Amino acid sequence: MNTNRDNRGWAIESIIGVDLGGSTIRLGAVTKDGKLGHFTKIDVPADRDKNAIVSFIVNSIKDILLTEEQSGNRVLAAGIGSPGIINTDKGIIVTSPNFPGWKNVPLKKLIEKYIKIPVFINNDANSAAYGEKWIGAGRRVSSMICLTLGTGIGGGIIIDHKVWHGAQGMGGELGHITVNPEGPLCNCGNYGCLESYSSATGMVRSAMGLINAGKRTKLLKLSRSKKGNITAKMIYDAAKEGDSLSINILREAGKYLGIAIAGFINILNPEMVVLTGEVTGAYEFFFPALREEVEKRAYTAIIRHTKIVRGRLKGTAGTIGASGLAWDKLI
Amino acid sequence: MNTNRDNRGWAIESIIGVDLGGSTIRLGAVTKDGKLGHFTKIDVPADRDKNAIVSFIVNSIKDILLTEEQSGNRVLAAGIGSPGIINTDKGIIVTSPNFPGWKNVPLKKLIEKYIKIPVFINNDANSAAYGEKWIGAGRRVSSMICLTLGTGIGGGIIIDHKVWHGAQGMGGELGHITVNPEGPLCNCGNYGCLESYSSATGMVRSAMGLINAGKRTKLLKLSRSKKGNITAKMIYDAAKEGDSLSINILREAGKYLGIAIAGFINILNPEMVVLTGEVTGAYEFFFPALREEVEKRAYTAIIRHTKIVRGRLKGTAGTIGASGLAWDKLI
Repeated sequence: MNTNRDNRGWAIESIIGVDLGGSTIRLGAVTKDGKLGHFTKIDVPADRDKNAIVSFIVNSIKDILLTEEQSGNRVLAAGIGSPGIINTDKGIIVTSPNFPGWKNVPLKKLIEKYIKIPVFINNDANSAAYGEKWIGAGRRVSSMICLTLGTGIGGGIIIDHKVWHGAQGMGGELGHITVNPEGPLCNCGNYGCLESYSSATGMVRSAMGLINAGKRTKLLKLSRSKKGNITAKMIYDAAKEGDSLSINILREAGKYLGIAIAGFINILNPEMVVLTGEVTGAYEFFFPALREEVEKRAYTAIIRHTKIVRGRLKGTAGTIGASGLAWDKLI
Repeated sequence: MNTNRDNRGWAIESIIGVDLGGSTIRLGAVTKDGKLGHFTKIDVPADRDKNAIVSFIVNSIKDILLTEEQSGNRVLAAGIGSPGIINTDKGIIVTSPNFPGWKNVPLKKLIEKYIKIPVFINNDANSAAYGEKWIGAGRRVSSMICLTLGTGIGGGIIIDHKVWHGAQGMGGELGHITVNPEGPLCNCGNYGCLESYSSATGMVRSAMGLINAGKRTKLLKLSRSKKGNITAKMIYDAAKEGDSLSINILREAGKYLGIAIAGFINILNPEMVVLTGEVTGAYEFFFPALREEVEKRAYTAIIRHTKIVRGRLKGTAGTIGASGLAWDKLI
């Protein structure tokens, strides 16, 4: 047998990390030191059908298992980061705004039926937070808040080096604090959540509202005059071309992020706030407004100690962190 | 020597707890089991002069020390709960909105100069939270949020049975999250903080604003037509007499408390939220609006697990908790 050994002569051990997103699944085998191998990205079927997604995950895990075993490596477990409210003890997705119709889905059980290694389920943003804490921007701090800015806004809280999951494993829903009681309807059913302003979805909604109100913007050209085609990426591209409507949307997203982050800082006094997810690509447009609100609203005595930085792991934070959380369970 | 013994024949040991409030200092000797003896209340001089307050505290501690020692009891330390941002490691009051002009006051050192036992300083609301967790409403939970509703609004966070102090000991400033970005100016310099709506000060400010705008209210009679005399207690009394302006102020205070608490629940998923402080006397007027907002804004999956209750220790939570936090340091 062709057996890989690490530099101490041991067979390489890994845990597969799975970052289950609304549009993409990202998987990889991650060693105990946080080294990522065999990274793959798969598109999620547009209808987000539960059975199809489960079999996608199962097949991808099996592929990695096969490759690793053929190399003589050991895969000890799989850790999955999933959006929504997760019962981490039982491995159940209680509810997930990104997968409508998913209610009390026993994902751990569904997957363990087909593979022979134990499976652990965590929230996707908690996984990303743990990834950044483990080997990313937060590796030198003991307390940290991580916001994942994407289709939605997720969050993870690190306290004393560990993820704070909450009493029922449902903590860290940082996207769903009210930043404006009279604000727009959010996917979660509440009004004026952070997510309704500063997520990709929220910014697209803002753009549509302004276009419907007759405002001029380059977004119409970029979307070939189909409002339904507008994406957050287009808002960023238009902002770079000087489109003032798009610049204002990104600035407003930053303002509400700042209001929320000032609150998180006053509540938790973490050492660091880490911003990750695709929306951080537009950092230069939203960060100045974010910083301005934080300076205005967080206690000066606290804010002068708190770093607000971008994540370092880019698209792999969730995969690495999902594996890391599973490593923690096994050790 | 006349020596008191506990029922195992040991000399009784205690730590003095001091709850330093904006208008009152409450002290008592507290045993390792949380039993409170020799409880005293002293009014704070109206000018809140630093030296006068320090000597008040020193003299009161000396009184208790003398009494306890004359009974053959041992006093091991003193724990002080002070409003404001506290550097708990060094025992310094960094800043305190309730004591204007107090900046970087080394309270621990100032008091230890005059007494022979070690002194520990914590935030007053963290102390109250710890008191409620130790022997009050939260004694059976491991995670909890405590809000102290008084002149200002303080907060304490219990995670894994311990107070979460934050990276620089400045966490738990739950009164200073923004609940309305366009809201009124708060004592902290920010706009639209929870404290600016739902504290005693905030409610009195609301009443003055409405009276200035020409609204009719029984408050004018209760305050003998002097707006400056209006207190939160008067607003509560007027509400009980059916005064609609006062009822609305209390309802609005409850609404913003609910918005904030929904956020705390989504962020931290604690087992319990405990409300304490003088404003909780008006519970029947603010709680229905509070509950309504929490139901609307917190994730259903989380809120059905979370108890929202009143504290059990009434005016002694801060004293007992300040002692408890010091006990934790000594053990």
